[in-house]
Amino acid sequence: MLSFTMEEYQERIRKTKQRMEASGIDVLLLSDPANMNYISGYDGWSFYVHQMVVVIIDEDQPLWIGRSQDANGAKQTAWLHHDHIIPYPDDYVQSLTKHPMDFAAQILTEIGQSHRVIGVEMDQYYFTAACYEHLKRHLPHAQFKDATNLVNYVRLIKSDQEVEYMKRAALIVERAMQAGIDAVQAGVRECDVAATIFQAQISGTEAYGGDYPAIVPLMPSGIKTATPHLTWTDGTYKQGETVILEIAGCYKRYHSPLARTLVVGQPTSQIADLSNIVIEGLNETLQFVKPGVTCEEVEAVWRASIAKHGLEKESRLGYSMGLNYPPDWGEHTASLRKGDKTVIQENMTFHVIPGMWFESFGVELSESIRVTKNGCETLANFPRELFTKHPNIHSAS
Amino acid sequence: MLSFTMEEYQERIRKTKQRMEASGIDVLLLSDPANMNYISGYDGWSFYVHQMVVVIIDEDQPLWIGRSQDANGAKQTAWLHHDHIIPYPDDYVQSLTKHPMDFAAQILTEIGQSHRVIGVEMDQYYFTAACYEHLKRHLPHAQFKDATNLVNYVRLIKSDQEVEYMKRAALIVERAMQAGIDAVQAGVRECDVAATIFQAQISGTEAYGGDYPAIVPLMPSGIKTATPHLTWTDGTYKQGETVILEIAGCYKRYHSPLARTLVVGQPTSQIADLSNIVIEGLNETLQFVKPGVTCEEVEAVWRASIAKHGLEKESRLGYSMGLNYPPDWGEHTASLRKGDKTVIQENMTFHVIPGMWFESFGVELSESIRVTKNGCETLANFPRELFTKHPNIHSAS
Repeated sequence: MLSFTMEEYQERIRKTKQRMEASGIDVLLLSDPANMNYISGYDGWSFYVHQMVVVIIDEDQPLWIGRSQDANGAKQTAWLHHDHIIPYPDDYVQSLTKHPMDFAAQILTEIGQSHRVIGVEMDQYYFTAACYEHLKRHLPHAQFKDATNLVNYVRLIKSDQEVEYMKRAALIVERAMQAGIDAVQAGVRECDVAATIFQAQISGTEAYGGDYPAIVPLMPSGIKTATPHLTWTDGTYKQGETVILEIAGCYKRYHSPLARTLVVGQPTSQIADLSNIVIEGLNETLQFVKPGVTCEEVEAVWRASIAKHGLEKESRLGYSMGLNYPPDWGEHTASLRKGDKTVIQENMTFHVIPGMWFESFGVELSESIRVTKNGCETLANFPRELFTKHPNIHSAS
Repeated sequence: MLSFTMEEYQERIRKTKQRMEASGIDVLLLSDPANMNYISGYDGWSFYVHQMVVVIIDEDQPLWIGRSQDANGAKQTAWLHHDHIIPYPDDYVQSLTKHPMDFAAQILTEIGQSHRVIGVEMDQYYFTAACYEHLKRHLPHAQFKDATNLVNYVRLIKSDQEVEYMKRAALIVERAMQAGIDAVQAGVRECDVAATIFQAQISGTEAYGGDYPAIVPLMPSGIKTATPHLTWTDGTYKQGETVILEIAGCYKRYHSPLARTLVVGQPTSQIADLSNIVIEGLNETLQFVKPGVTCEEVEAVWRASIAKHGLEKESRLGYSMGLNYPPDWGEHTASLRKGDKTVIQENMTFHVIPGMWFESFGVELSESIRVTKNGCETLANFPRELFTKHPNIHSAS
């Protein structure tokens, strides 16, 4: 049932402890579900209640602390010994009088960790302001340090097995993207296209079933393409509309995102020209990516490419991604943007997403890439072009 | 494009300000995407970056503060005047040196709100510990108060339009549940059943397209039914296995959850007996629900019913739900459990979910209900029974 060998989990813990040591952290509380999974294998949709995996610098095995009804899920999906799975009673859940972090503080005290340096993921979705306040109140002798992204940085370079999972996710996204493009037609409801995409994402391939991506299909159409994060309605596509599809395949929580733009009918010259500029910029950028260059140098190539056409893009060009849970497949570490001096290394994986959004229209066309020994490869193999949809023609332009 | 009349949004703001006044809060920062939507209409998958809606006690219109590329989404989906939509530059996103709350603090200072009592949703997923630290640092003259659930309590009683949306969501969940039950067979992959359910959830009915539910299908099978929050694998169903399906229909972000249990083949007497106990308990509980009784009194009926059979359930029996975003469709206010003295009122809506989980098996069978003038009604109309699946027979037992 485990997605990786025990050796791989041990290696992750070794690297995590190295970073803990460098930061002077004795006890690391991980509430990011991706980090919990990365360290322990735990996988369940229980992150809507407070829970954590605890890595103690001088202990071999982490602890899982979570809701009682999820403990059997931890026993079934994590590699931890069952006495390292510690459930809290259900009356701590979304209570106005008790908080799960009070319970966690009590456990940390009982096992002699209350006077140590405790790392917490300060800027992580599932570590709320209240979590921190409760921990500080119930662990007055502990010293707290910000450990946001500590494990995320360990995740930055993928193992061969992780790359393999992302390539399976890429096979899935190729199918889902093709299914979406095939389904869009004037008069078809947006929700029916979304349903078709979901079906393909989750069913996956004959060999590999799909997992739920951390983000639902983003698929603005018409004037909504002026912004990237709208989903769908039950309205129908109109002749002449531009449609953006940004979706991912997901396999064992590993993602391969992909974005394409299509036009229902003939593209205006505005959309066609913008697409060409984006494709040219993306091609030049991908040709530049290799170990040793920095994230900001990668972005500078893109910036120079579109500047030739008088364009600028304020927002970042891409970001590291891989293992994740809702609401984001991005890893929150390296971003392809000015100021990010992260040195690109082999087996880093990025979603390179040159989206351009104006007041009433936009274009997105992306690739998920793996950095190779001497360059990079795309995870998916999908035509890098603007698609045009004509009635009853189900293939690409 | 708005889901509700302007009068309804104004009424929500009036009730919110009433609660702000009672709590001595001048400025309310809402980072819960459901609360942002409830107040402003804003709808987009942008909650993976920091954003907020700000309600100021002596101002007519709230502010939206969010990422620059999402500002057009706010203009298109929210009813706010465009000068009330305030974008922050993209280099604040997931940055190691800048934080969006620094920007928000600066805006609050510029508009003269820096010396007031500011309410923040301390225990809400998208208000991290770092958000609070940054706000405190940059607003040293403000006084902060915990406003967790302040708007959630306004949401507790639904309007007629909200109930209508939840009934549409119920029509969708009926179809999705039937599609799921029909699809489960020995030898079928779990991911293919999940894909079928997603397809039905998102496609919806001919009249109403589905929105994405805040939780993906929870569908443990076999020994995994010992815990509620596992999703699916690409393994196949085996003859004799028990399967739990807990899913929701969603329409314009409003949910109607529903859980049923099925058996691939003949149920063991253990599963059949447990199902009968759960159904009897659920029936007795629903007959008791009416305005004027308390949440804990409702739970006590269930508790007494299963105690007749020597059973106990530690976890809560249900919770208020309606409008929501991932990771939870529950509202985090009233729960059907001991100690919750919330008085039930007309147009409250609950997911009543008597799940029973043991070491190696479990049963769930739920109803989403609306409290009526004199009792309650289920939102969906779906047979309340244990389903058995025999090869090539696609109907219920």
